Amino acid sequence: MGESLNGLKRTIMCGEPRENNVGSNITVMGWVQRKRNLGGLVFIDLRDRTGILQVVFGEEINKEAFEKADLVKPEYCLAISGKLVERQSINPKLPTGKVELLGESIKILSESETPPIYIKENLDAAENVRLKYRYLDLRRPDMQKKLIIRHKTAKIVRDFLDENGFLEIETPMLTKSTPEGARDYLVPSRNFPGKFYALPQSPQIFKQLLMVSGYDRYFQIVKCFRDEDLRANRQPEFTQIDIEMSFVEEDDVIAINERLIKRVFKEILDVDVELPIKRMSYSEAMNKYGSDKPDLRFGMEIKDLSDVVKECEFGVFKNAIAEGGSVRAIVAKDCAGMGRKKIDKLGEFVKTYKAKGLAWIAYKSEDEIKSPISKFFSEDDIKAILDKAEAKVGDLVLIIADKNRVVLQALGALRLELAKQLELLKDNKEFNFVWITDFPLLEYDEEEDRYVAQHHPFTMPKDEDIQYLETDPGRVRAKAYDIVLNGEELGGGSIRIHNTEIQEKMFKALGFTQEKAWERFGFLLEAFKYGPPPHGGIAYGLDRLIMFLSGTENIKDVIAFPKNQNAYCPMSEAPNIVDYKQLEELGIEISKLDEN
Amino acid sequence: MGESLNGLKRTIMCGEPRENNVGSNITVMGWVQRKRNLGGLVFIDLRDRTGILQVVFGEEINKEAFEKADLVKPEYCLAISGKLVERQSINPKLPTGKVELLGESIKILSESETPPIYIKENLDAAENVRLKYRYLDLRRPDMQKKLIIRHKTAKIVRDFLDENGFLEIETPMLTKSTPEGARDYLVPSRNFPGKFYALPQSPQIFKQLLMVSGYDRYFQIVKCFRDEDLRANRQPEFTQIDIEMSFVEEDDVIAINERLIKRVFKEILDVDVELPIKRMSYSEAMNKYGSDKPDLRFGMEIKDLSDVVKECEFGVFKNAIAEGGSVRAIVAKDCAGMGRKKIDKLGEFVKTYKAKGLAWIAYKSEDEIKSPISKFFSEDDIKAILDKAEAKVGDLVLIIADKNRVVLQALGALRLELAKQLELLKDNKEFNFVWITDFPLLEYDEEEDRYVAQHHPFTMPKDEDIQYLETDPGRVRAKAYDIVLNGEELGGGSIRIHNTEIQEKMFKALGFTQEKAWERFGFLLEAFKYGPPPHGGIAYGLDRLIMFLSGTENIKDVIAFPKNQNAYCPMSEAPNIVDYKQLEELGIEISKLDEN
Repeated sequence: MGESLNGLKRTIMCGEPRENNVGSNITVMGWVQRKRNLGGLVFIDLRDRTGILQVVFGEEINKEAFEKADLVKPEYCLAISGKLVERQSINPKLPTGKVELLGESIKILSESETPPIYIKENLDAAENVRLKYRYLDLRRPDMQKKLIIRHKTAKIVRDFLDENGFLEIETPMLTKSTPEGARDYLVPSRNFPGKFYALPQSPQIFKQLLMVSGYDRYFQIVKCFRDEDLRANRQPEFTQIDIEMSFVEEDDVIAINERLIKRVFKEILDVDVELPIKRMSYSEAMNKYGSDKPDLRFGMEIKDLSDVVKECEFGVFKNAIAEGGSVRAIVAKDCAGMGRKKIDKLGEFVKTYKAKGLAWIAYKSEDEIKSPISKFFSEDDIKAILDKAEAKVGDLVLIIADKNRVVLQALGALRLELAKQLELLKDNKEFNFVWITDFPLLEYDEEEDRYVAQHHPFTMPKDEDIQYLETDPGRVRAKAYDIVLNGEELGGGSIRIHNTEIQEKMFKALGFTQEKAWERFGFLLEAFKYGPPPHGGIAYGLDRLIMFLSGTENIKDVIAFPKNQNAYCPMSEAPNIVDYKQLEELGIEISKLDEN
Repeated sequence: MGESLNGLKRTIMCGEPRENNVGSNITVMGWVQRKRNLGGLVFIDLRDRTGILQVVFGEEINKEAFEKADLVKPEYCLAISGKLVERQSINPKLPTGKVELLGESIKILSESETPPIYIKENLDAAENVRLKYRYLDLRRPDMQKKLIIRHKTAKIVRDFLDENGFLEIETPMLTKSTPEGARDYLVPSRNFPGKFYALPQSPQIFKQLLMVSGYDRYFQIVKCFRDEDLRANRQPEFTQIDIEMSFVEEDDVIAINERLIKRVFKEILDVDVELPIKRMSYSEAMNKYGSDKPDLRFGMEIKDLSDVVKECEFGVFKNAIAEGGSVRAIVAKDCAGMGRKKIDKLGEFVKTYKAKGLAWIAYKSEDEIKSPISKFFSEDDIKAILDKAEAKVGDLVLIIADKNRVVLQALGALRLELAKQLELLKDNKEFNFVWITDFPLLEYDEEEDRYVAQHHPFTMPKDEDIQYLETDPGRVRAKAYDIVLNGEELGGGSIRIHNTEIQEKMFKALGFTQEKAWERFGFLLEAFKYGPPPHGGIAYGLDRLIMFLSGTENIKDVIAFPKNQNAYCPMSEAPNIVDYKQLEELGIEISKLDEN
């Protein structure tokens, strides 16, 4: 069953009626949140995307409507007309709580079976059920709020960039597979059997070509694809805010993006982001926080103890330093009383980051120090360590000695772990932004035994470091920048190389022959023969941005129809088998069958 | 070579300086359109996306800059600073033609080889060269104008829909293949070897699910994909403006879309579209114009002669009518003098539309009529035919007798062909919109020997025709509408079925068993169990809309990086071969190799 509208028009949304509407005849349409029979009346809470309105039906209001209303069940879709009146028992929780609608007529537009999940906020249902019945999950007001924030954010971004002379230009989805980078999603070609398109991992090359073409300022909110094993908060298809500008340097890109960020956070959350956003070099971030995306909402900085322990008796420390490594620590405030078991667990934790062990000093009082390594140190040595670590009475000092990379990574992770355990960020509403700059241009890849590009091979080196490209590539810093919010990377970008000599040096540093470079990036290199402008840009993960703006830690909450951890959609059952004929036309065969 | 900006900032775009800027020091950046040496001076026309500015260098202005300027060639990328002065010989063709820049310093940001195509408007170069060097083709001002119109149009559409309560919601690119419709692009799954995603042909099902989810008003500007053999003006990936609304009927969808269309044409072209846009039923369009997308910028309507010839001696006419067909004509104004050869060619033309032949009557004067079929008719009969056809002296009547479908299709095509030959639309600047409504719900597919959905299986029948769904399905009209502009379909949509009983009748009419219906549309049918609202929508081809707005007949001109007719990109060389390892991971093998 399902009645037609037959010309009936909605006059107002469910969440809109207020006291000033009292007395008017209105028509609302929506879903039954709740139905109650009470004192010979029928009460229906009718819900649409704007909110809930209470409707009351009674024999004395309208007998026919009353009897029909008595038939409805939750999630029936209704159209109800009648007069809006003041509500006798005000509901302060509802924005419409001071009014109610007298149900004079009702259409049952469609019926509903009992839904397999509750349509309510903060639902605690199994993820696979939520994903299978996504259309019901999406009916929940908190999910609707998130997708509305997503719409608004994209709109604000587009408005801002349009106002600032950026053109949104669509780049192709069916592109060429490039061996560098993450795994591509492939699309077999029917016209060219045996050949494949790839879905784009990013529009990087196309946006650079648009700069060569003189479009000056480009942006796009665009789907990108990576066929990687899904960690939490990754999706096979994700959305990027992709930006590129010509005739700019680092500060220009950063300045306009700060204004963009400020606008978004002001309009969506009414949060004022103070400009300029602070900046921190990659090396400072690594040394102080053991991370290139430091969470600066709390301190607990890493301190280098190497100076004060380099001549100590404790072999682990001495050797680490002698071998070029270091001894560093973080201080857990007021944790001197932490139990041995808990500390041991932290020791296990840092081992997952390849640290061999965790030394500690509990600064119990001026006179009492507890530590498994105290026997290796004089009292003065310990004082010197505590001083260097800036520990106060009551603190626990946690120390790692190893290669620098291991020490920093492990302490960086430990810092975050402790913040979680100590609930340092509980009720923290801060949005702490920082630009991380001066990234290394190249990274030594031990497996490939060569340098690989930290960002991509078109990232411009810092002017003062170009001299080291041939002699000491690891030392070269890039004109690259990431915007980090509360310890998460929101976006990142760089100034690109527009100079053929520097580009050739870069390829040499990467160990690419001319042939290899051309094979991989031929059409971009060809384009660069024809007057490329200086240019640079940035790309943001829109999904992650929306997670911040809507206060969720689950990426699936900000995507209307996400995939699960296996890149599978329980609702549409994609991927699925296809007709043999389809494969035959594409000139491919299945060589391995799904064992699932 | 390539100089750095080193902090140099652009202060104004090339196309912006005017007389009120005279006297100020400016910095412009762009490309060399032209360089001339004249009277001991060097003149450079510098171009960016906003236009061209003349720069003059001389020994007396700045010797160093003068000497460097003398080195540059077309398409070098430059930054030039100096003082803006009044131009001595005004160039009225340039918006900046009253001023020029005295070149006091110049940076050569990058050099350029001689480009393989000219960077100028209205280039007449081979398409494959234009596509291969697309980044240079895109530098041409007329191409830039088109992409700027595309950006602006998308922006206007988004602004309008946002103002009207529509939410842009992204639907997945990796979806499930459905056997109905056009051929899908497939994407092999690595997690589920032997299974495939499909790229969406449209977000149809997802947007209906969003209505079930209560999003009320949805839109999306979104890439869609069809792996079809490419006719002119088709691309394997194309962009749709996709819209869906809840609690609406036909008139509601049409009304808001008329306002959208009006806004776009006003803001982009300053053209006033008069509202309401006229409407024409499918059957009127077919009978008068032989097309469901009639070009109404000219008349030449089809006239039915059956009544006046049904008892004539001419067997071809008589038999066609006796067999249920008809005899119809169009009148070519003032063409009575058309030569025999030309008329014969029109006869050949209609044969490609399956008409067996073309009869004609040249109404040379009141007393002179020329016609190969005149011998079958009395003078009065001929007069009756001319009267019925509304032919005037000097006109040529062109007649086809056959099954109705053939007659209408052939005359519809002939009508357009004649308009072209007679240049009826030369210099016509009109934008003639019409809504075509009341489409047949079902179409009889002779190959499959069953009815198939004209739009899709969720299109709502007209209320008054529901009764025929079981008894006479061919008679049922749909709540469907297309918006047609100058004989091209800009968009189309329908009200959807939200009533399970009607949906079941529809499936029955399509010859689907319950199982088959569920196999194909299971999750949508499942969703419809839970209170689906009445809903409907529309989808526009954005590419085609931009073609109208930018005045091009080539779809490739409105897409930054299009494919050629073989769905191949000569620039990126996509599709291309991939590593065997990639295929192995996906569990597929190549069974047929590209013979190209």
